[in-house]
Amino acid sequence: TASMAAPAAPVLPTDIPEGMGALPSEVPVPADNPQTAEKVELGKKLYFEPALSKSGNFSCNSCHNLGTAGVDNQQFSIGHQWQRGGRNAPTVFNSAFWSAQFWDGRAPQLEDQAKGPPLNPVEMASMSAETVVSRLTEAGYGPLFETVFGKDSLNYDNMAKAIAAFERTLITPDAPFDLYVQGRGEISEAAKRGMKKVADIGCTSCHSGPLFTNNTFQNFAYGTDDGVKSVSGKDEDDHLFRVQSWRNVAMTAPYFHDGSVKTLDEAVRIMAKAQLGSDLSDADTADIVEFLKTLTGKAPEVSFPVLPRPAGHALNWAD
Amino acid sequence: TASMAAPAAPVLPTDIPEGMGALPSEVPVPADNPQTAEKVELGKKLYFEPALSKSGNFSCNSCHNLGTAGVDNQQFSIGHQWQRGGRNAPTVFNSAFWSAQFWDGRAPQLEDQAKGPPLNPVEMASMSAETVVSRLTEAGYGPLFETVFGKDSLNYDNMAKAIAAFERTLITPDAPFDLYVQGRGEISEAAKRGMKKVADIGCTSCHSGPLFTNNTFQNFAYGTDDGVKSVSGKDEDDHLFRVQSWRNVAMTAPYFHDGSVKTLDEAVRIMAKAQLGSDLSDADTADIVEFLKTLTGKAPEVSFPVLPRPAGHALNWAD
Ligand code: HEC
Ligand code: HEC
Ligand code: HEC
Ligand code: HEC
Ligand SMILES: [Ca+2]
Ligand SMILES: [Ca+2]
Repeated sequence: TASMAAPAAPVLPTDIPEGMGALPSEVPVPADNPQTAEKVELGKKLYFEPALSKSGNFSCNSCHNLGTAGVDNQQFSIGHQWQRGGRNAPTVFNSAFWSAQFWDGRAPQLEDQAKGPPLNPVEMASMSAETVVSRLTEAGYGPLFETVFGKDSLNYDNMAKAIAAFERTLITPDAPFDLYVQGRGEISEAAKRGMKKVADIGCTSCHSGPLFTNNTFQNFAYGTDDGVKSVSGKDEDDHLFRVQSWRNVAMTAPYFHDGSVKTLDEAVRIMAKAQLGSDLSDADTADIVEFLKTLTGKAPEVSFPVLPRPAGHALNWAD
Repeated sequence: TASMAAPAAPVLPTDIPEGMGALPSEVPVPADNPQTAEKVELGKKLYFEPALSKSGNFSCNSCHNLGTAGVDNQQFSIGHQWQRGGRNAPTVFNSAFWSAQFWDGRAPQLEDQAKGPPLNPVEMASMSAETVVSRLTEAGYGPLFETVFGKDSLNYDNMAKAIAAFERTLITPDAPFDLYVQGRGEISEAAKRGMKKVADIGCTSCHSGPLFTNNTFQNFAYGTDDGVKSVSGKDEDDHLFRVQSWRNVAMTAPYFHDGSVKTLDEAVRIMAKAQLGSDLSDADTADIVEFLKTLTGKAPEVSFPVLPRPAGHALNWAD
């Protein structure tokens, strides 16, 4: 009989700057919204559900396309009647890891966040939580909610809970950097130089840890958006924005809260200047960009959901 | 050892009207575009690809949502800059079986059809085949086309071929009627009465065979659309439309080429009157609708594709 050698222990790299590491495989889950397979499946349907929008044209996936890193790569997303808002749509990938949702952190959790877009007049533009619920009822969601949340449970809060549960599955492991850290793959020499550079010059004071964000709100003296101040009204919150994660950042152009910067190269230079007062050389910029590209993870595998619909007539879309 | 009984031969129903039968499991495939797994996978990416549209907002799936029976359930779909066209979007499900594509049959095959929407100004509104190809090139489709079609093969014709190959997988077997025909399931008594009624009164002279269409173009004296005449210019083609299949018809409201009829019930009454000169009773109408509902098949299982995109910058969307 053939003998089998024990698998060689992977050789771990010794050059990883302090704090950096592979993407955690477990996301935080709030005690009042435990993950279940059926809830995730319902949340997926709702995530792809154009009936959340008044016109029947937009689902969450319109602006946060799971086929393109959870974004639409627009400066400002196209919403109801071709309106555009004033902020760039961030990715939903890994959003379960953020301390708070939105650029200004105004939604503490994914559950709170998911209640926003259906009623936002420049996004999905539904009239009220009640109209959304009655649409979902007409579509035939009642029994699906019942299975997940119990009898008579089709309501706006549970809709948001199911969507949040689905979003908690949208994590992107196995980026080239993760494989490198774990001794399962290589990254280029340029990327390694970039990796050291971001630690040496201090990017990682904010973009720290395996998420490449310390999940705090920091001043970014750029653009006309007040950031956290637009929520709190406090002057000391002016231009505070959540430190954006670098996870998948190469795929989420254009950059910054106002989507004003077209290339990652330029975003890196602006950051270095604004946050660290330093003018990066072309070579250092290129190395950092190469490093950031190694943070593109594996997109979640998602089977396209079949949505409940009434037989013999359509839902009532409106303009 | 346990002995195994031979499975009982299913008891086939004896009441099936002549010509009716289960959906064929094989679609016709043109000799110059054979199906391959890689081509279908590429076609799926293109089907879900918003980069085919000028704005980056619309994919084929926007109007032919695979989660909702291959339609958007709009009277007229929302297209570029919120424009709407003048015809109702038919389902892509089973479209590989039709004799020609579009209500007026102006595209002989799926390959021809797929070249239309990207350039249609009220749909995806791309400027030209060249701009579409250059977008796809920039997105990173080159190597994918190369694998499927060979070297330097990213062109508009091959794009259409891949999409058509994917569409040929969008068939919907195992409708309750199919299971009934095959002795694998039951349908209601009302549905059985409807099944006989449509044969008795002559609906199945046009809506014949397992596809419930004879794939011909027939006069439908309804509405202001010229039908085939709008393509041929010939008076004898006035108001000719392809006999629409009844497959999945309960899920594809609103009805007729102009989407003017909201319910299947009303569509059935109008058809009986216009095509057969008969006023259906409420009971007969209800039975026929029950029968039509048994023609809703199993939606194809589709894993959501990850789309190629450049790293570090976005594709150039425009209004
Ligand atoms: C029309 C475009 C559009 C639609 C539709 C839309 N979003 Fe968003 N989304 C945005 C924009 C823009 C932002 C940033 C807004 C801000 O920060 O003020 C955002 C922010 C988010 C965030 C916060 C991410 C972060 O890093 O802070 C999450 C999570 C999210 N959306 C999920 C959803 C879900 C779930 C739905 C559907 C229920 C949805 N979105 C529908 C455009 C959209
Ligand atoms: C003092 C904190 C801080 C430091 C230091 C910092 N950043 Fe940032 N970074 C942020 C904040 C806050 C944002 C969100 C900015 C906004 O509002 O768009 C951000 C955003 C970014 C973005 C854009 C992300 C996106 O999705 O749009 C990139 C890229 C980036 N940082 C790279 C860097 C690099 C490279 C360095 C070092 C040269 C660096 N950052 C240093 C706080 C910091
Ligand atoms: C903005 C809406 C919209 C978009 C985007 C769109 N279609 Fe259509 N589609 C329609 C409409 C409307 C018709 C009917 C037009 C007619 O018959 O004149 C149609 C017809 C069809 C048909 C013919 C079906 C039949 O029964 O005759 C097929 C197949 C099809 N589309 C596939 C596609 C593919 C593939 C794409 C992407 C390359 C696409 N469509 C993009 C709206 C759209
Ligand atoms: C002489 C041919 C003919 C006969 C007979 C006929 N139909 Fe039709 N049917 C058509 C054509 C052609 C269309 C497409 C009409 C259009 O342009 O919208 C159609 C469309 C339909 C539709 C709408 C499909 C859709 O997706 O919008 C229904 C439902 C339907 N027929 C049911 C029936 C019923 C029930 C009968 C018998 C009572 C019947 N038809 C008899 C030719 C016929
Ligand atoms: Ca962005
Ligand atoms: Ca229809």
